[in-house]
Amino acid sequence: MPPSDATTLDTLETPALVLDASRLDRNLARLAARMAEQGVALRPHMKTAKSIDVASRAFPNGPGPITVSTLAEAEYFAGHGYRDMTYAVGVSPHMAARAMRLRQAGIDIKVLLDTREQAAILGEAGRAAGVTPSAFIEIDCDGHRGGLLVTGPNLLGVAAALDAAGVTLAGVLTHAGESYALHTPEALEAAAENERAVAVEAAQRLRAAGYECPVVSVGSTPTAHFAKALDGVTEMRAGVYMFFDLVMHGVGVCTTDDLALSVLATVIGKRPEKGWIMVDAGWMALSRDRGTAAQRVDQGYGIVCDLDGRPYPDLIVAHASQEHGTLVIRSGSSQALPDLPVGAKVRIMPNHACATGAQHERYHVVFGPARAIAAEWPRMRGW
Amino acid sequence: MPPSDATTLDTLETPALVLDASRLDRNLARLAARMAEQGVALRPHMKTAKSIDVASRAFPNGPGPITVSTLAEAEYFAGHGYRDMTYAVGVSPHMAARAMRLRQAGIDIKVLLDTREQAAILGEAGRAAGVTPSAFIEIDCDGHRGGLLVTGPNLLGVAAALDAAGVTLAGVLTHAGESYALHTPEALEAAAENERAVAVEAAQRLRAAGYECPVVSVGSTPTAHFAKALDGVTEMRAGVYMFFDLVMHGVGVCTTDDLALSVLATVIGKRPEKGWIMVDAGWMALSRDRGTAAQRVDQGYGIVCDLDGRPYPDLIVAHASQEHGTLVIRSGSSQALPDLPVGAKVRIMPNHACATGAQHERYHVVFGPARAIAAEWPRMRGW
Repeated sequence: MPPSDATTLDTLETPALVLDASRLDRNLARLAARMAEQGVALRPHMKTAKSIDVASRAFPNGPGPITVSTLAEAEYFAGHGYRDMTYAVGVSPHMAARAMRLRQAGIDIKVLLDTREQAAILGEAGRAAGVTPSAFIEIDCDGHRGGLLVTGPNLLGVAAALDAAGVTLAGVLTHAGESYALHTPEALEAAAENERAVAVEAAQRLRAAGYECPVVSVGSTPTAHFAKALDGVTEMRAGVYMFFDLVMHGVGVCTTDDLALSVLATVIGKRPEKGWIMVDAGWMALSRDRGTAAQRVDQGYGIVCDLDGRPYPDLIVAHASQEHGTLVIRSGSSQALPDLPVGAKVRIMPNHACATGAQHERYHVVFGPARAIAAEWPRMRGW
Repeated sequence: MPPSDATTLDTLETPALVLDASRLDRNLARLAARMAEQGVALRPHMKTAKSIDVASRAFPNGPGPITVSTLAEAEYFAGHGYRDMTYAVGVSPHMAARAMRLRQAGIDIKVLLDTREQAAILGEAGRAAGVTPSAFIEIDCDGHRGGLLVTGPNLLGVAAALDAAGVTLAGVLTHAGESYALHTPEALEAAAENERAVAVEAAQRLRAAGYECPVVSVGSTPTAHFAKALDGVTEMRAGVYMFFDLVMHGVGVCTTDDLALSVLATVIGKRPEKGWIMVDAGWMALSRDRGTAAQRVDQGYGIVCDLDGRPYPDLIVAHASQEHGTLVIRSGSSQALPDLPVGAKVRIMPNHACATGAQHERYHVVFGPARAIAAEWPRMRGW
């Protein structure tokens, strides 16, 4: 929808979530081109954007395949014409039943699991709903979270349990979550190759045992951008690549010029004797995410930029309370605190786009470098 | 409103925010009784609950004085009959104009400031709206955030600027934010006495200079509960005391039996070889707040309890991704991982009630120890 009145970054009330759609489009095109070159389907993860308008930028020719992190997302995107989706969180009994209601409505939703119990629960939910469920077996490629080890006994066991429960095996799915902790091209390339190799090996084990395993799904934003070859992989999942953020910048996947998301804030006070500038964006607007704290450069709660998105040298949000952010010059820097009067506006680049986005109801869309708010795009939330 | 159908904690979909209204009522009564004894008015901060239904438990006889952290809260509570409110975040030009629209509508909203610039901006906003603004001068009692030093030259300067701008001086306001970092009764009592003494001294300086300074407003949940005397103070502000949380438990203000808020979650996987249980509550449901990380006992992303709210010994949420939480036995403990099958439900006590609550659309209300969902109370959000 259009904004309620003619607004620009200069007049927008703060705090507010700003999305530079020029950068969004560039980021979308970058990974789409990369996957087209590799001949691998891209299944964008909607957990970051949670917005039909952002999805429409990724799929200008109409709905395509998507990944979702909640069934509320699945239902929301189904309501906007998306029919091919993977719910990439281990399925619970409740969510199995709810996903089957989507299948009853003609939505091709695939779920994720890594236990025999889930296979049985899902089969039962399918029978109760009169539909055939489809599930990915989750593979653990790097010890990050859930999933089965490719060499363990459970892989074939879960496949057999799916078969016994009347569930279609969609394929194998893995996520190189540990790639977020890396920061050199060599390590990222190796993580991508490991993710690929483990997923393909899992598929081969299943196929050798007689199971059709049509899809080999991998993905994380770092590995999607650093994979040199994707032989045997059929699809790539990634989400935060649409917006990027300071964590991804610290990993080395993007530059700060690629960051599409920022939080607009207003100066509400100063403590010159302490070297502090107070703004009206605290953790409620920025999120509590401190993902850069473990990286080589700790960005506090974010990098502070002018209204055109140019960082003030070494100015970061060092502290955040609920509705207050404290801007300081980064420790060790000789830069001077900029002279920002009460009422001045800044844009803050966040650590983690998924977390910061979730604190807001809507995107205020600019096509940078223009400052005019071209649109307001609502975000969905909940489970 | 009543829940959509007859639901209990056993059948509620997860993740979900659960509020034990028995504990809420007990926490509300505890501080109300304490302030009544001291003869000090209580002005609860609605930034934690953001709910008219919770406010109604605090004010069973009709709307009373409240504190708000956003003008969206002010407008929401004004729409529900609340007329006496303090907006306790330094006022920006936009928010000055918006607050004046509330005064035009007959709402007695007081704002907060600590600069001459804000005084001039507020005066101008009042004149433009045809109303007389009312403002507190923010006092810094412990170096935590904004505010003026009681001994500095700016206190009388800002008072003079308010006078010149045609703004009513409501009084002085301070917040002992550093009390969150304490954990002994002696230190907390000293912080409360310091907060009181600084606020009263500021009021006395203003009165000695000829300014009427009717209200002396102090408050933080720790100091509200540890103040031994409040001579000269006229009102107390506190918010998180309604729910309490693990940070407040670490400070020593409450026991875990006082925690009214929890997140209901379902087991979605296990990694016995790693000592992990996976649940469907990640940081989207729990928030990214790691407030206990700096305390003596780090609770991870929360303490894991059974459906009746009894903690499993030493079981915490050690890691959280967007929609996954990883339960582990606390490092150094000899406890065994409980046998929780896929589909089992747990309740997670959060680090920070303000941050965790903000991740949710509504409270599912129980009157513990009953498991029935007695009501659903919506939360408001935004700015």
